Amino acid sequence: MNTIGHIFRLTTFGESHGAAIGGVIDGCPSQLKLDFDFIDSELLRRKTAQSSTASQRKESDRVEWLSGLLDGVTLGTPIAFIVRNEDCKPEDYENLKDVYRPSHADFTYEQKYGLRDWRGGGRASARTTLPMVVAGAIAKQILNEKGIKIYAEVVCMGDAEQAKREGDTVGGIVECRITGVPAGLGDPMFGKFSAELAHAMFSLPAVKGFEIGDGFALAKMKGSEANDTFINKDGQITTLTNHSGGIQGGITNGNDIVFRLAFKPIPSIAQPQQTVNRLGEPCEIAIEGRHDVCALPRALVLVEAMAALVSVDSIAQLQ
Amino acid sequence: MNTIGHIFRLTTFGESHGAAIGGVIDGCPSQLKLDFDFIDSELLRRKTAQSSTASQRKESDRVEWLSGLLDGVTLGTPIAFIVRNEDCKPEDYENLKDVYRPSHADFTYEQKYGLRDWRGGGRASARTTLPMVVAGAIAKQILNEKGIKIYAEVVCMGDAEQAKREGDTVGGIVECRITGVPAGLGDPMFGKFSAELAHAMFSLPAVKGFEIGDGFALAKMKGSEANDTFINKDGQITTLTNHSGGIQGGITNGNDIVFRLAFKPIPSIAQPQQTVNRLGEPCEIAIEGRHDVCALPRALVLVEAMAALVSVDSIAQLQ
Amino acid sequence: MNTIGHIFRLTTFGESHGAAIGGVIDGCPSQLKLDFDFIDSELLRRKTAQSSTASQRKESDRVEWLSGLLDGVTLGTPIAFIVRNEDCKPEDYENLKDVYRPSHADFTYEQKYGLRDWRGGGRASARTTLPMVVAGAIAKQILNEKGIKIYAEVVCMGDAEQAKREGDTVGGIVECRITGVPAGLGDPMFGKFSAELAHAMFSLPAVKGFEIGDGFALAKMKGSEANDTFINKDGQITTLTNHSGGIQGGITNGNDIVFRLAFKPIPSIAQPQQTVNRLGEPCEIAIEGRHDVCALPRALVLVEAMAALVSVDSIAQLQ
Amino acid sequence: MNTIGHIFRLTTFGESHGAAIGGVIDGCPSQLKLDFDFIDSELLRRKTAQSSTASQRKESDRVEWLSGLLDGVTLGTPIAFIVRNEDCKPEDYENLKDVYRPSHADFTYEQKYGLRDWRGGGRASARTTLPMVVAGAIAKQILNEKGIKIYAEVVCMGDAEQAKREGDTVGGIVECRITGVPAGLGDPMFGKFSAELAHAMFSLPAVKGFEIGDGFALAKMKGSEANDTFINKDGQITTLTNHSGGIQGGITNGNDIVFRLAFKPIPSIAQPQQTVNRLGEPCEIAIEGRHDVCALPRALVLVEAMAALVSVDSIAQLQ
Repeated sequence: MNTIGHIFRLTTFGESHGAAIGGVIDGCPSQLKLDFDFIDSELLRRKTAQSSTASQRKESDRVEWLSGLLDGVTLGTPIAFIVRNEDCKPEDYENLKDVYRPSHADFTYEQKYGLRDWRGGGRASARTTLPMVVAGAIAKQILNEKGIKIYAEVVCMGDAEQAKREGDTVGGIVECRITGVPAGLGDPMFGKFSAELAHAMFSLPAVKGFEIGDGFALAKMKGSEANDTFINKDGQITTLTNHSGGIQGGITNGNDIVFRLAFKPIPSIAQPQQTVNRLGEPCEIAIEGRHDVCALPRALVLVEAMAALVSVDSIAQLQ
Repeated sequence: MNTIGHIFRLTTFGESHGAAIGGVIDGCPSQLKLDFDFIDSELLRRKTAQSSTASQRKESDRVEWLSGLLDGVTLGTPIAFIVRNEDCKPEDYENLKDVYRPSHADFTYEQKYGLRDWRGGGRASARTTLPMVVAGAIAKQILNEKGIKIYAEVVCMGDAEQAKREGDTVGGIVECRITGVPAGLGDPMFGKFSAELAHAMFSLPAVKGFEIGDGFALAKMKGSEANDTFINKDGQITTLTNHSGGIQGGITNGNDIVFRLAFKPIPSIAQPQQTVNRLGEPCEIAIEGRHDVCALPRALVLVEAMAALVSVDSIAQLQ
Repeated sequence: MNTIGHIFRLTTFGESHGAAIGGVIDGCPSQLKLDFDFIDSELLRRKTAQSSTASQRKESDRVEWLSGLLDGVTLGTPIAFIVRNEDCKPEDYENLKDVYRPSHADFTYEQKYGLRDWRGGGRASARTTLPMVVAGAIAKQILNEKGIKIYAEVVCMGDAEQAKREGDTVGGIVECRITGVPAGLGDPMFGKFSAELAHAMFSLPAVKGFEIGDGFALAKMKGSEANDTFINKDGQITTLTNHSGGIQGGITNGNDIVFRLAFKPIPSIAQPQQTVNRLGEPCEIAIEGRHDVCALPRALVLVEAMAALVSVDSIAQLQ
Repeated sequence: MNTIGHIFRLTTFGESHGAAIGGVIDGCPSQLKLDFDFIDSELLRRKTAQSSTASQRKESDRVEWLSGLLDGVTLGTPIAFIVRNEDCKPEDYENLKDVYRPSHADFTYEQKYGLRDWRGGGRASARTTLPMVVAGAIAKQILNEKGIKIYAEVVCMGDAEQAKREGDTVGGIVECRITGVPAGLGDPMFGKFSAELAHAMFSLPAVKGFEIGDGFALAKMKGSEANDTFINKDGQITTLTNHSGGIQGGITNGNDIVFRLAFKPIPSIAQPQQTVNRLGEPCEIAIEGRHDVCALPRALVLVEAMAALVSVDSIAQLQ
């Protein structure tokens, strides 16, 4: 359950304040010369997404490559990598050890496992998305050679500066576009490209909504408005409009894949909040620590990474 | 890719106008006395959802049980079942054999497989959702014994009667609620309950959007508004509000699971449409046949069925 | 657990005296014109393997194709098929309903599931291997086009005629050879070609041993005797000997794959046997019914079928 | 393909002379206090299995635990661990860079991947079994609490001391016994306990044969000799003999699971051998390096580890 993908598979591990977080990529093609500079630049996008709204944790985020490579070239065997957790301040969380932060996973993890790593959110921390970025960067490199590009952008976001002053946080909407996708990716029934994308995106923290093409707006259209007319453009069959977001019957039609994600506001707010502790006793907390005001700037590279993983895996399934 | 689930698994097969459609359920607990009347009543919900807007195909939808049962009791071995396709009129589709219906899967299937079953949409037909209803009914029976209920309802839908007159179709939004779910279902990272639900729902035809809890509305909230305060209610820890839709960190918190789905309008419209044929030549089509004006009434039982499959499978993963 | 394969996957279902047995093949390439005559001839090999030692059950073994085909050509969607169970005589088994036949699966199924289908062995019946033959025949057709052939033969078998007179049964050893296999099939660590073969072969009833290449004889050799020297034969690198059975490090080396299977004697013997019933009370049984004296003649086509499934699946995993 | 198990899953990674080897265990129950001393003692069994016949590589084999633990207690999240590769001497292998060692995986890896890690056998090195021992030790701890024990022993082995003097190696046979196994483990058809065991055992280097119960000897028996008579022993149904090795119809019957493995001699011999290089040119090699004379003493803990993994995973699948 910590693995995603069918052929190109990523397994991740690690807690926020444990020794390290990392991943194992299985099924990566051999003979690929990894672009480490690109991987680092993607990690940097995640880390320094914004200056004013980001958490202040000092993470060097240096990737240690453990296996699967010879002189930087993939061997076809599993590529394992880790990033050490540095600048851990578990004491920031000591006072939260026995209380359930509202809309965090403290309570649910404890219900599921009988215990939880209370230091910085443990496995539920956004820090655990780092391995996705590493794997996503490798996936992007593979896609790039096939002419497939992925871009995510913020299309809607609350007023972060004001929220910061108020000890509050904001959510927003991200739109992502995959271009150059060949027709024929995705499988009927339970392997639809859209379903795989949705699954991957809901694996990101704070995602609460996903729509493809015109999405929820399609619910208000008539068939005559929503249908994408097929046309012959320079000898190539394509569609005049792209209400479908590049996917019909779960299979890509060669148009851009377009989807949007709703991110809820980060639940760690500085304002005092009512909650209960492990014994069910009411208490008040104010989450100090180092936290982002908005997840979106950091999230862009994550969304692209997950989209890249789904795309590479789907291409690998073509025979 | 025609299989869904990890422990409680459904594999489906069949094309709209082939000999039969059906499914194999593997991982169903043994010693369960199947409620065949309930299964039939669920199938009836799918078939006769609405009188005025539904397709007129005469389907007896009689389930033949092939395996996995002894005197109606599950053996723990795979439960296979089929429903014969009757009243097939492939000739209705003969004229569509070489053209790509707008926003249908004709083009994408052909791109993927090099050929397609043109009779009634083949594997992409909504008829292929029938096995989901059968399996979903069995899943519901199991859930029912655990006090878990699932209800879907239409919360928004276009004007079907007007659309029908105009040879058009409409989309809409369905909301589904799962009650009585224990806390602790779902797995961190890539097995989140929300991700499994999203995957399952995007397996349904015409679904283009999925949101959980307050979903897209959360994108416009502040953290202080969106957070669900934990409270002690009669000795039980729960939350005051349910913006999260019963899921935090991908794991159920014991509250109702609430989600909404956007359905696009059915792409088969009676109005004439421009498109191209297999050779890329422009042509005009008018889809006669027997088609629904709106997918939603039929879709309710499908949404519930898929929600039931995800829930049962998730419970089976608890050790 | 009733599914085998990663890309080319077979799911089987059915009990010996239920309505039907069958299978679903998912991941079969599209645009393959099935050779139904060949499939029938393979089924005939299974049915009429030997005249003197075989069970007398009259099975027409007519395959009904339910899905995945258009005019006999594969669509790329799941191919479902069933064979009706005919000439069922559950009354032959009525007296065995509450007793545990020695070395049969009666006791273990009941321990696992709390009940069992007592009619003819239920899911544990050798009849449930029929879908493997159907899928194996399709796999063989695909392999044949790639120049890959599979032959199994009996290399050792007890005296069946004498055993029959004594109301007894015999076991034996089958050797199978796969020729024309390209180098590079199989994956390191847990996807070794040898491991996949072993898994597939132990899925056959009565198999109790599996060895590849010189197998157990290698345990008594020295390295200098067991090693396969690489040579250059007409510009092609191959090995002088084939002690390894075509596999090194779990990956095929281009030589013939050679393996042997030990089959135990069929446990259904006419001689009276001591056993216990469900209550643990001692009793004596004599298994009348219609049973083979030896599984081997029928098993040849099964061994080939499973070898074909593993080979096709392994080739499908090559990118 | 570098992952084994369905619920309790082990993913391994690493090459012999890369930075590290390691594993990720997913699906381990939470709240288990790991017995690190036991894990270390199992690793020691692997390392110092024999004094006279073992390779002289100095491996400290210190396990670094990266995730999934809080104060030594499992969190239910993935347990990742690595062991650094020390005392690497890639120069020992420099002369083997372009030649194919007989009966090694050099040639097959290169055929599969187009390149290989030539340093110490890379991913095909026996060193990559180390993570199996770590995971196996954790599995054993879980089994131990359920009264399940696993013992492997050498039952047949060539004359190692003589072989060493001659620059040769020897093979042998290992027998393994699992006691205390409950009845009902394993699944019909493609999830048989015996098939899962066979798969796991063929994942070990040098294994070329596997038999369960009386195995190949059963091929020469009659049914009346091979059948295990059920008896009532102190109110418990069991069998008088155990020719079946504790498994009937692929499902455990409560008796000891007994199986044997044939190991081929280690292919790295000091004697000069003929082979070819990458260009297909004949050449002679003598493998100096540090190599075992026989794999068996080290293999015992590996066999037990894989048996433990299969057992724990099978128990986890019981609902």
